[in-house]
Order: sequence, then structure tokens, then C-alpha cells
Amino acid sequence: MLNHQQLYADYKQHLQKIADIRYSAAVLQWDQETYMPSGAAAIRAQQVATLTALAHEEATSTVLGDWLQQLKEVKELTIQEQKNIALSLYDYEKQKKYSNAFVKKLSQVTSTAFQSWVAARKQNDFTIFEKDLDTIIQLKLQEADLLGYEQHPYDALLNDYDRGATVADNDLYFATLKEELTPLLKHIQERPPINDDFLKQNYPKQEQWDLGMELLGLMGYDLHTGRQDIAAHPFTINFGNTDVRITTRIDEQDLTNMLFSTIHEGGHALYEQGLLSENYGLPLGEYSSIVVHESQSRLWENNIGKSLPFWEFYFPKLKARFPNQLQKINVTPFYKAINKVAASFIRNEADEITYHFHVLIRYEIEKALLSKQITAKDIPAVWNEKYKHYLGLTVPNNALGCLQDVHWSHGSFGYFSTYSKGTAMAAQLYATFLIDNQSAKEKVTEKEMWKLLSWLRVNLHTFGKYYNTEELCKHISGEGLNVQYLMNYLKNKFLDIYK
Amino acid sequence: MLNHQQLYADYKQHLQKIADIRYSAAVLQWDQETYMPSGAAAIRAQQVATLTALAHEEATSTVLGDWLQQLKEVKELTIQEQKNIALSLYDYEKQKKYSNAFVKKLSQVTSTAFQSWVAARKQNDFTIFEKDLDTIIQLKLQEADLLGYEQHPYDALLNDYDRGATVADNDLYFATLKEELTPLLKHIQERPPINDDFLKQNYPKQEQWDLGMELLGLMGYDLHTGRQDIAAHPFTINFGNTDVRITTRIDEQDLTNMLFSTIHEGGHALYEQGLLSENYGLPLGEYSSIVVHESQSRLWENNIGKSLPFWEFYFPKLKARFPNQLQKINVTPFYKAINKVAASFIRNEADEITYHFHVLIRYEIEKALLSKQITAKDIPAVWNEKYKHYLGLTVPNNALGCLQDVHWSHGSFGYFSTYSKGTAMAAQLYATFLIDNQSAKEKVTEKEMWKLLSWLRVNLHTFGKYYNTEELCKHISGEGLNVQYLMNYLKNKFLDIYK
Repeated sequence: MLNHQQLYADYKQHLQKIADIRYSAAVLQWDQETYMPSGAAAIRAQQVATLTALAHEEATSTVLGDWLQQLKEVKELTIQEQKNIALSLYDYEKQKKYSNAFVKKLSQVTSTAFQSWVAARKQNDFTIFEKDLDTIIQLKLQEADLLGYEQHPYDALLNDYDRGATVADNDLYFATLKEELTPLLKHIQERPPINDDFLKQNYPKQEQWDLGMELLGLMGYDLHTGRQDIAAHPFTINFGNTDVRITTRIDEQDLTNMLFSTIHEGGHALYEQGLLSENYGLPLGEYSSIVVHESQSRLWENNIGKSLPFWEFYFPKLKARFPNQLQKINVTPFYKAINKVAASFIRNEADEITYHFHVLIRYEIEKALLSKQITAKDIPAVWNEKYKHYLGLTVPNNALGCLQDVHWSHGSFGYFSTYSKGTAMAAQLYATFLIDNQSAKEKVTEKEMWKLLSWLRVNLHTFGKYYNTEELCKHISGEGLNVQYLMNYLKNKFLDIYK
Repeated sequence: MLNHQQLYADYKQHLQKIADIRYSAAVLQWDQETYMPSGAAAIRAQQVATLTALAHEEATSTVLGDWLQQLKEVKELTIQEQKNIALSLYDYEKQKKYSNAFVKKLSQVTSTAFQSWVAARKQNDFTIFEKDLDTIIQLKLQEADLLGYEQHPYDALLNDYDRGATVADNDLYFATLKEELTPLLKHIQERPPINDDFLKQNYPKQEQWDLGMELLGLMGYDLHTGRQDIAAHPFTINFGNTDVRITTRIDEQDLTNMLFSTIHEGGHALYEQGLLSENYGLPLGEYSSIVVHESQSRLWENNIGKSLPFWEFYFPKLKARFPNQLQKINVTPFYKAINKVAASFIRNEADEITYHFHVLIRYEIEKALLSKQITAKDIPAVWNEKYKHYLGLTVPNNALGCLQDVHWSHGSFGYFSTYSKGTAMAAQLYATFLIDNQSAKEKVTEKEMWKLLSWLRVNLHTFGKYYNTEELCKHISGEGLNVQYLMNYLKNKFLDIYK
């Protein structure tokens, strides 16, 4: 074996070891959310922390740094190998910027903050969470300084969820969105409301579960390398691409809750199952960015799961499963009901239009916090003012307002905008797919779904982290992320529904 | 903090880190046996191997060795702290005897051997397994040399499962057992057979599951720090004493399969739940030996679960659960049926008498192998000859013979005798318990079971590894492990059943 081949093999083995440790921690977390007895919580937190610290040690070890510096200069590596090295080096240098003291401090604060957020939300009292949140914001500002940025401290954090994203780009993105969706929402609000009462009947648990499993099967989710369980919050988690699990929750008085969360998580899971085993542990074996991940879940949830062509195919089967509940309903009123637009307080229950305002509000607040224009204590007032301004809603309490999301207690600043941008990317991807797959405009059956999955596998999944969000959009559709695809999609769809 | 206190704190933290890693690997193993999708097997094996190697590195690190050497000399430590240090040092020095090359080799061979054992058993062809088994035996002989022994290489291996056990002691133990059980078995075989047909009816799965959960509750198994799942083979596994899980399997055509395996695993689990949280990761937070562990499972399974006083209490409830199946049955015939003695081929389905011959046969074969009197290829013939000799059975094939147990493929030589000795210890413990708890001779209700559990907690569980098997027996009953307790118990019980 040549020297550089041995070097690359050593590097690969080291990264796979790190992956083994990180995925092991993920198994412990999955177990924690699904089957772990409650008395195990304290020791489990310690076990996860030990594995996380071990992975961090290995990811910042001097020997890895040396190998990466040497491999960076090796011209004989393949393009893919070179990309792995470049991405690993980038990650290594980034990780090295974090002192152990900082990592420990952030870990301690977010651990406490999660508890205080839970209590604050339960007791509907923001002040319980305020002090911890303030500490987290201070640490995130320190983190931005420590990571470095060109224009805005928020850039350093956005980059964590979407390589290369900046406040400048996001401002432009949200400006277009705001400009175009505001009149669209106004138009919709002036139309007569859609009836969706029949979605809120009793839909028994087992039947809903079976429906979810059938849909996952239709999408191409592989149970040989995956499984679904019940958990308090739906999520996707994976331990390599041969074990990609999702969870769901079932509300017997609401069909759509399980329905769209299962399709959403299924979309995430298909992405992870589509990564290449041969790249296990390497950057090219990982997802590109959170925006891209979200594009996959939102594509299946919205562009397929909330589309008329899909329900033209699937509604008869749904009706056969729930003959009493849907007795008098045809496909069109069903399609309209699942797409009903109505301003509401909770982001993750929002329709396809108002959803983006929920995200926009969080983006604006995070930006203001990281620009030091406001501090933690100002959040409730600013939040409520923005909900009034953008959605015309008077927030009745903080539990339905600024305490609804877990993200800030985790220290995840910069995450929210990926929800909107992922949705925009989904629209762009699906428009591109439709160019060569016109039949899917009429009806989406198993056949069209298999075509879509194959197309995503070939054009997106198998690339892993090779491209970032912008590059991936260009590779697939010939241009970077363009919000106009989403605007066109939403206008066409909702001007038709709300004629 | 004084210097030695800091040193002890460092030592403790290091051991807790090792425990975190080992228990994490155990979570992965539990998941593998219960919920893991089958496609994840290869990557999962690698993840477990990585964690195991990390734990081994930490357990043999130079810094740990230095601390232990220093702490060994510190007189200010408490008795318990000194015991932890002594046991850790013993373990450290033992672990250091294994070269990385040896550990790797054994791990590779057992991994291959497990596969070839599965294939051999399935195809009923010993030769598929023979070569790997031979390699394992050679490695176990090497291991004995490397660990050192005074009289017999087998001593070094027995010690792994029962600190201080020797061939000399085991020979004496099995000689008594053989001498006393042979005439007892002969007597029983001359009596008319017991009818147990009614145990082999249809007992529906959900009802059996509910029965198992009720029994576990009666025993005092705490679901706040435990849970039960279905798996191919019943086992107990724990990730600290706040998360102790068991599995069971249900055969709808056989009530006793689930019944006694659930009680058995429940006994193991009660022991782990009874260890002290404050000793997490330290020797005193671990079980004493496999013999002691087996004494706990066998005590609940046999001395309680197969006793007349227990069924005097519980049979009406069982009958209420299965009114059709047990319509015509009263407690006495039920008690006799679950205690039916009949020589059979499979160890883990054996009754309380013949069970010990199954173990004895394995012990004699292991001893012969490690004395180099026989080799792997001789096993089938020797096995079949011994089954003829001790149990009067003609083994029809190796799947029902020497291929039935997984242990040798794992490299577990020295394990089997703990099954018998643990059962003997259970008899000794229970006889001691009864001295001050005479009412349990008549009837065993919730009250007696709670008393028993408390008694075991106080006298045995909370000591962890403080005492070895012999010392623990002495501490509790005033004498070392004495097989006569088992002999008396079996004679009293079975001479009464087979009057």
C-alpha cells in the first residue's frame, strides 16, 4: 500500500470510530425517548455526556489534525477523497476553536435551561426561563466571536445549520417571502373559510398506526433498515444508513396530526437511508445541511402529501379505512380541508402559508438578540407584537407564544430559518422533478413515488455532504436556491383552493 | 480536600466513565436483541466493538494503574473504599495480562464461531463448528497460562465466573451431587409418571404477558427502573441499577415456558435493582459472582415459583385468568405437573433433578478438554455417552445434543457449573430465610415475597462485590456453600411428590 493510501485508510478508520461513538450516543437518545424507564434519566444523561465527550476528544485529537494536514497536500486522492479531507479539515479546525471549558459551560447551561424551559412552559411563566436563556445568548455571542464572521455575528451561527448562509442572504430571502405572501394571505383571509370538521372526529389509534405504516411503505421507507415507534414528539434518528428510525404520535381526535408528521419524518428517513454505506463516518456519508434535510421532509409532506394528485390516488384507500368518518366526503373537500389556511399560534401545526410567518418572526427575534438590539427579557413583548403585526393574532399567553419551541433551550440559534428555506428548496426540487415527470401533475401513485425517490437518490441523497445547499440546488436545477419556486407553487395552489 | 480524597475521587470518576461506556454498549446489545432492524447487524457489531475496545483501553490505562498503586497504601480509606481499591487492582492486573493481540484474536474467533455454531446447529452438523471450537479451546488454554493457576488450567477459567472456584472444589461438589441424586432419580423413575398435559394447551399470548407482568409486580420488580420486552431468548441486562431490563418469550402452546423464564429473569433483575446507586461503576456496585447471580434467579424460580406454598396462594388467580384451560385442575395436580421429573435432551427445559446432570456432563467435558484428554472432535461421542450413562437417553442428533448451548461459541468455558452451584446456593439461602420466616413454609403471599426481597436486599444485594460466593454464604448462613441444603430440599420435595 502506498504511503498516502495508508494515511487515508488511517484517517477513514479514525472517522469511523468517531461515528461509532456518536451513533452509540444516538441509540441511547432514541431509547431515552421511546422505551427507557423514567428512573433511568439521571444516569442516562451521564452516559450520553461521557460518549459525547469521548467523540469530541477523538474529533479534536492531534493525530487526526496531523493526518489531515498531510492528506490535504496529496494530489493522488480521488475528487471524493479530497472532498472528504477538505470537509474534515474544516470541521476539525472549527471544533478546535471550542475550548473544553466553553463546551462544558454550554453543555451545563443548556442542560439546566432545558429543565427551566419545561417548567416555564408548564407554568406559563417566562421569567423561570429568562435567566438561563440570557446566559445562553451571551454564550452564543461568545461562540460567534470564537468562530469568527465577516459581517454579522449571527452568520457564524447560521452556518452551523446551513454552510455558507448569511444574514444578508436570509434578509433578502425573507423580504421576498414577506412581500409576496402578505397579499396572498390577505386574499385568502377574505374568502369564505374551509370546513375541516370531519378531520377532527375519532380516528382510532391502531387504524391510524396502520395508515402511517402503509404510507411509509408507499414512499419507499425500508423497514429492513428502519422502524417506527411511538414517542412524545415525532423525530427521525439514525445510527448509520442501515438503521434509520422514526417516531410518531397519534391524536385519536385528529387525523392530520399523525398523517403529516409521519410523512414528514418519512421524508427525513428516506434521505438518511439513501446515503452510501461505503461512506459511513465520512463527510460524504452525511447529509448536506439542515436546509437540505428539511427539503426532503417538506417535499414529501407538502408537495406530495398535501397535493391533489396524491389524494386522487390515495383518497379511496383512506376512505375504505375510515368508511364512517369519511362517508360523505369526496376528494376535493378533503384536499381543501387538509390545506385550510388559518392564522394560529403554534408553528408546527401551521398551514403552508402562515408557516413562513412563524419562521420569519423567530428569525427576526434571533437577529435582534444577536445584534444586541434586544435581550432575553424583551422576547415576550416583541414576540406578541410580531404575531399581531404579521398574523393579526393576540397571543393569549407565553406557552402559546414564545415558550412553544424547545430550540433556544438547546442553544440552537440559527435553526429556524432552515424550516422555511428547506420548504423553498423542496418546491424548487419538485418543480425540477416535474419537468421530466409530467404524469405526476395528474396523479401520484406508487409508480410516481418510486420515480421521485429514485430521482432524489441519484440527484441528491448519494452525494452526502459533497455539495452545500446552494451547490446542490445548482447541481440539480441549474440555479441556486430561488424562493420564486416556492412563491409560484403557493400562489398556484392556494389561489386555486381559495378561488 | 486531602490528597488521598482527591486521588480516590479521580479513581471513582475514571471507573464511572468505564461503566458509562460499558453500559452504553449494553444498551446497544439490548436494542439488537429487541427492536433493531435486521439490516443494521453489521454496523451495530462494529459499534459495539468500538465501545468495548474503548472500555478496555480505559480499564488498562497507565494512569488508573498508578492511582490504584498509590491508593492501595492509603490507610485512611474506609473499609468499603479499601475493598473497591483491592478489587479494582485485582481486575486491573488481570486485564493487563491480556495482550491486545490476544483480545483481538479471541474476539475474532468467537465472532466467527458464533456464526458457525448457528449454522452447525441449524444443519445439525457438528463438523461445521468443530474447527472454530478447536481454535477457541486452544485460545482458552493459552488464556489459562496467561492468567496463571496453581493446580489445573481450568481453575483460571472457573475463576472468571466464580472468584476462587477450583476444579478440586467443583469435583467434590459434583461427586456429592451425583452420589445423592442418582438414587433419587432412580426412585422417581420407578414411580408412575405425572400428568402435565393440561400445561400444553393454548394459553393466549396477551394473557400470558399479563400474567408475567403481574408476577413480576408481586416479586417487587420495579418498573420505574425496569421494563420487559419480547426477545428470541429470555435475558436480563442492566445499564446501572436504575435501568434493569428483562426479556421473555411466549409459547402459546406451553404455559410453563414463559412462566418460569419470567420469574427466573425477574430474580436476576431484582438483584441488579438492589445494588446501590452510590456505588455506580465501582466493584461494590456490581454483582458478586455468576454463582450468586444464578442463586437469585433460581431462588425465585424454584424455591418460590415451583413451591406448593406459593401456588396455595396464587393458583386461584391463575385459574381465574385461564378458567377454561384449568377448569378441572386443583392446586395439587398443578403443583405436581410443574414439578414433573423426566429425563430430556435440553438443559434449559429440565426439571429440578435432571438439570444438575445436564450441568455435570458439561463440566466433565470442559474439564476433559482443558486437561487435553479429549479434543473438540471427540465431543459428540463423549456427550452422547454421558447422556446415556447419567440420564439413560439416546441422543438422536447433535442439535438436541452437544450443539444446544451457545456458551462455547462465546468462549465461555467455566460458566456451566455456576448454574448448578447457584441453585445450591439458592437452597441454602432459602433455608436460612425460612428459619426466621416460618409462615412462608405454609403459604407464600405478597407479604412473604416482600419479606424475602427485603431480606435479600439487606443480606445480599446491597453488598455488591464485597464478598465472593463463599464469603457471602458464610456471612448469611454461617457456613460456606454447602450442597447438602440442595440435597435436603430436593429429597424432601420430590420424595413427597413421588411418594
